[in-house]
Amino acid sequence: MDFMEIIRSRRTIRFFRQDPLGEDMLFELVEAARLAPSASNGQPLEYVIVNEKTQVERVFEQLAWGAYVQPRRDPPAGHRPVAYIVVLINSERELGRFGVVDAAAAIENILLASWSKGIGSCWLASVNRETTVDILNIPAKYRIDSVVALGYPDETPLLAECAGDSIEYYLDDDDRLHVPKRALNTITHVNTFGRRKKA
Amino acid sequence: MDFMEIIRSRRTIRFFRQDPLGEDMLFELVEAARLAPSASNGQPLEYVIVNEKTQVERVFEQLAWGAYVQPRRDPPAGHRPVAYIVVLINSERELGRFGVVDAAAAIENILLASWSKGIGSCWLASVNRETTVDILNIPAKYRIDSVVALGYPDETPLLAECAGDSIEYYLDDDDRLHVPKRALNTITHVNTFGRRKKA
Repeated sequence: MDFMEIIRSRRTIRFFRQDPLGEDMLFELVEAARLAPSASNGQPLEYVIVNEKTQVERVFEQLAWGAYVQPRRDPPAGHRPVAYIVVLINSERELGRFGVVDAAAAIENILLASWSKGIGSCWLASVNRETTVDILNIPAKYRIDSVVALGYPDETPLLAECAGDSIEYYLDDDDRLHVPKRALNTITHVNTFGRRKKA
Repeated sequence: MDFMEIIRSRRTIRFFRQDPLGEDMLFELVEAARLAPSASNGQPLEYVIVNEKTQVERVFEQLAWGAYVQPRRDPPAGHRPVAYIVVLINSERELGRFGVVDAAAAIENILLASWSKGIGSCWLASVNRETTVDILNIPAKYRIDSVVALGYPDETPLLAECAGDSIEYYLDDDDRLHVPKRALNTITHVNTFGRRKKA
């Protein structure tokens, strides 16, 4: 798949098939994260791969899913993620406030690398961190930035253009997710703010 | 180029050839940013493409380059970026503190999309924002998150493994940049913190 095709076709996935993801594949996704840029090359990030059945079940209980499409897109049993990558920031290695910035770039690499292999993902920031730290035995100097849920997709979300000002994603009558994005010409200025692309 | 090959080969570029980047190409890079995930789909980001000679020169003066390799990697005339994408956060659209997170994911898309087209980039957070806002005529409700410098590469940085604890990138005697990254097994845990990959 061409790079721009990966970018264009990738969408957040919240319904998953139950085929397992092996350790080698999950390490390959962390490898993509490892090679993301890091502010001043500080590299404060570490990763916990979760793919053991009981751990997967326990982590699932700590997550809150897409607010605009609840409860229809709370994944029910049989459609839940089969693995997670939990992204940690080591506070002793963090430079300034760049931990969340490094994490976002690394997570974007995970999302794209997954999609390039046919794997769907959902980036979750709404996590019960206190409990998750216990479940994964995470030392105090680390904090959980995000959890990336993973599995082969069992839905096909659609990209849409924003109608008016609303940016809320929604499910249609056929249970397909639509994600409205602001138009390219609306968000892009040329050489000075407010100047638009020549026709 | 295969997606993982883009990830593996991409490095920050600070020396550029002077071939121009056209408006269509720069819009394609913003398109990659536009399609990045956004927290709750809030989409607070806008972009200023800078590729007019005088604006490019003025923006250059507002940037501080890689701290570990100064002054050798302060790009001299004839090696400077030929274009910029300035990433803005609209405070009225920002949800919580997710503006910088959205920006980092979008910028990572720009870096990868550039590289997939043979274009080098440097993500700069060290920007004289007060002056840049004036140069680009940016309204008060927007703040500059980062500046992405762009151009065809005129150097070939190398990926290295960390030797000991040092994460400082450096230039060797042949003026090649080496970027040490922490090893995959050091930063990855399996199902519980501290458990490593099976051999």
